[in-house]
Amino acid sequence: MSFTHFNENGRAYMVEVTDKADTYRVAVARGEIVMKPSTIDAIRNSGIKKGDVLSVAQVAGIMGAKKTSDVIPMCHPLMLTGVNLNFEVLTDRIIIEGTVKTHGKTGVEMEAITAVSVAGLTIYDMCKAIDKDMVIGSIRLIEKTGGKSGHYIRQEEVNG
Amino acid sequence: MSFTHFNENGRAYMVEVTDKADTYRVAVARGEIVMKPSTIDAIRNSGIKKGDVLSVAQVAGIMGAKKTSDVIPMCHPLMLTGVNLNFEVLTDRIIIEGTVKTHGKTGVEMEAITAVSVAGLTIYDMCKAIDKDMVIGSIRLIEKTGGKSGHYIRQEEVNG
Amino acid sequence: MSFTHFNENGRAYMVEVTDKADTYRVAVARGEIVMKPSTIDAIRNSGIKKGDVLSVAQVAGIMGAKKTSDVIPMCHPLMLTGVNLNFEVLTDRIIIEGTVKTHGKTGVEMEAITAVSVAGLTIYDMCKAIDKDMVIGSIRLIEKTGGKSGHYIRQEEVNG
Amino acid sequence: MSFTHFNENGRAYMVEVTDKADTYRVAVARGEIVMKPSTIDAIRNSGIKKGDVLSVAQVAGIMGAKKTSDVIPMCHPLMLTGVNLNFEVLTDRIIIEGTVKTHGKTGVEMEAITAVSVAGLTIYDMCKAIDKDMVIGSIRLIEKTGGKSGHYIRQEEVNG
Amino acid sequence: MSFTHFNENGRAYMVEVTDKADTYRVAVARGEIVMKPSTIDAIRNSGIKKGDVLSVAQVAGIMGAKKTSDVIPMCHPLMLTGVNLNFEVLTDRIIIEGTVKTHGKTGVEMEAITAVSVAGLTIYDMCKAIDKDMVIGSIRLIEKTGGKSGHYIRQEEVNG
Amino acid sequence: MSFTHFNENGRAYMVEVTDKADTYRVAVARGEIVMKPSTIDAIRNSGIKKGDVLSVAQVAGIMGAKKTSDVIPMCHPLMLTGVNLNFEVLTDRIIIEGTVKTHGKTGVEMEAITAVSVAGLTIYDMCKAIDKDMVIGSIRLIEKTGGKSGHYIRQEEVNG
Repeated sequence: MSFTHFNENGRAYMVEVTDKADTYRVAVARGEIVMKPSTIDAIRNSGIKKGDVLSVAQVAGIMGAKKTSDVIPMCHPLMLTGVNLNFEVLTDRIIIEGTVKTHGKTGVEMEAITAVSVAGLTIYDMCKAIDKDMVIGSIRLIEKTGGKSGHYIRQEEVNG
Repeated sequence: MSFTHFNENGRAYMVEVTDKADTYRVAVARGEIVMKPSTIDAIRNSGIKKGDVLSVAQVAGIMGAKKTSDVIPMCHPLMLTGVNLNFEVLTDRIIIEGTVKTHGKTGVEMEAITAVSVAGLTIYDMCKAIDKDMVIGSIRLIEKTGGKSGHYIRQEEVNG
Repeated sequence: MSFTHFNENGRAYMVEVTDKADTYRVAVARGEIVMKPSTIDAIRNSGIKKGDVLSVAQVAGIMGAKKTSDVIPMCHPLMLTGVNLNFEVLTDRIIIEGTVKTHGKTGVEMEAITAVSVAGLTIYDMCKAIDKDMVIGSIRLIEKTGGKSGHYIRQEEVNG
Repeated sequence: MSFTHFNENGRAYMVEVTDKADTYRVAVARGEIVMKPSTIDAIRNSGIKKGDVLSVAQVAGIMGAKKTSDVIPMCHPLMLTGVNLNFEVLTDRIIIEGTVKTHGKTGVEMEAITAVSVAGLTIYDMCKAIDKDMVIGSIRLIEKTGGKSGHYIRQEEVNG
Repeated sequence: MSFTHFNENGRAYMVEVTDKADTYRVAVARGEIVMKPSTIDAIRNSGIKKGDVLSVAQVAGIMGAKKTSDVIPMCHPLMLTGVNLNFEVLTDRIIIEGTVKTHGKTGVEMEAITAVSVAGLTIYDMCKAIDKDMVIGSIRLIEKTGGKSGHYIRQEEVNG
Repeated sequence: MSFTHFNENGRAYMVEVTDKADTYRVAVARGEIVMKPSTIDAIRNSGIKKGDVLSVAQVAGIMGAKKTSDVIPMCHPLMLTGVNLNFEVLTDRIIIEGTVKTHGKTGVEMEAITAVSVAGLTIYDMCKAIDKDMVIGSIRLIEKTGGKSGHYIRQEEVNG
């Protein structure tokens, strides 16, 4: 088992994918931000108004997906053909799920987990004046299709 | 308890800090990426070579701190005067700690947790070919000084 | 009357402001996007739901203000200390007003009119599937305070 | 008539175009910046020198077209294959026309009107020291070809 | 012999490549940074430690290649499918070689020489506290394949 | 003699300058692009027309100076207060000189040499269709004032 991201001199490089076929690719990632129930209540109330916390996080996460290859050094630039984000608001946390699609030579896992991360960071930013103890976590790949490595489904999802 | 990030029409805006004093500000954030012990071994081995995984994550995290106001919608642009990142490699995870400093009108919490997040995402990217089950988590503010809201130290750190 | 943006060789340059004093500066700009009344109705209806057109435009406009010196070649980078956007929805158009503040060496007119422009472009993008005839216009500076050139109020606002 | 930019939860998302065919696409947009005749004269004079106002606006507009998907939240990234800008200098205004081409899955209307907008903003920036009353306006799509929605020609252009 | 980068009005534009075929394209560029032998020694010593000067330059150069169309006004955006950088450390200079690949409508010369330039600038930045006399130079295209203009090999390479 | 850009673990970091005084700082850099005399002639001829090669390089170099901290990993963000670029066209090369000013905590050497580099890359891009043998070189710091390290003047300039 060895890394693919290093060249013949042991230095990092952008892996060559020139010869890979263009295929349809989808990745789903999930994460969460844990907070005080009173902060959850404040977010729910903001949602009644026009400019709610989650709308801002939604926009930030989608724009974040498009910035992935600018932020992650060895990521290939990709023409994203679809980005979606959904939030599930529980009593002490918000579950963030991001789905990214493309038709290209490499997968979109990084785009999906970057979208989820940026959405989490934005919720943190919008709420930090009332709750500094929030924790962003459980950011992980859930499912991935397309490309030579085949279909990946996270085990917890199969069992759970 | 109410949000500061909404204007008189209930829409999100960049909070006005024009009249706040410029003070020295420091923020420390921490997070982790959990992975298979064999992936940890591969990272340790890469560190012997010239271009190790953590060097790339180091550079990405520092550049990520500088991109914070470009990525997080309501963040103020800030002239960062210092960014540092440290990694602690354990048997099944890497602890990432980021410290950001400035002399300005708003705090640098978001810059610190963004640096930690981007470093975590970069480790994920560099290792995903050999381990798709990694989880990025526990991203949180540890300490914050400067500004009117005073000194914040996360409780776990005081007790733990 | 001569341009300030040209150097001794007649080429464009970023005007030197090194010796100018840091003062509080505010700029207000306004613009509008004219559209079919039925498109206005669709936007009003989207506002009832969580992710309305104007929320996305709000976020885009605020982020756009922060990108001004990256997009406009001779603009100085500035540490914005406040950005606000408001929309007034009329029967056949939406009035967009942007206010930007800083404490610095140059004014924030360009940031305010860029915020208004980007918000207008975003509304266009969100609505173009149902109305291709929209027109973005009347983008202008309304008021400007701070700096040596003094207080500017657009005449129409004084009279109107 | 309903918006395409909202997902099943009523939140904004990047519309999925993964299955759309790659076709040749062209969009033409037009706009104008109205100013005092004396400002027009100053611009004409600057054009005699090496670094004229419109050269800077030309470069800014072309670079602006490439930033469209970074600035407009729900825009798809696209590989632009041609961007052109032309200016017509009249006695009290400058007409700006932008043409953008690509071979891809979505249209380039937003790129064309963003190019025109950024060129207008740049002219404003270069001239604002001598004329603060300028107005940027009439930014609109003139023509669009390629894609399933077919050929669009603005009515005024057909009649006028 | 005439420039391709000017439109019918003599203004710069992004050359239209819409109708060009997608082909595999490779470009190799080379450059160097000349410095005091004692600075070379300091760099060699830094290489023994975890975060050496050349690792940072490696990451910067690869990220720089991806920024090419954002930095160079008339460059087409391209989906890079491979970026590699190698350094050869001599007694008084470091030779930097960059290779960029894509499958697209235009060549990647600019991406290769931009990668080399950014790597050189980064080495300069990391070393400038101990050596302000460094010189970055000899940045040039070495080889280029793909596209209608055929195979280019720099003469010095053929003879030397 | 040791590097300042490494932290206590031997990893690269953004040097802390929080406690440094804000002072006026100027840096001048110079570089050149060598080309065939016939390419020089073509550039001179383009200068007669409205959108000449050097106007585009001028704009690109100034915008490049503003991107320095985004492109060079360990560079501090700085509020540039003046950027100027001048070209001297000789028979077989163009000399590029860049001057950058700020009032801040760190110097602007990197901004000046980045401006010169980006201008050189842009000239290369505009001329590469007619001359692939151009070489960008001699990029170096000429003078630097402000800050604790005092006044630097390159020796060749003193002697030459």
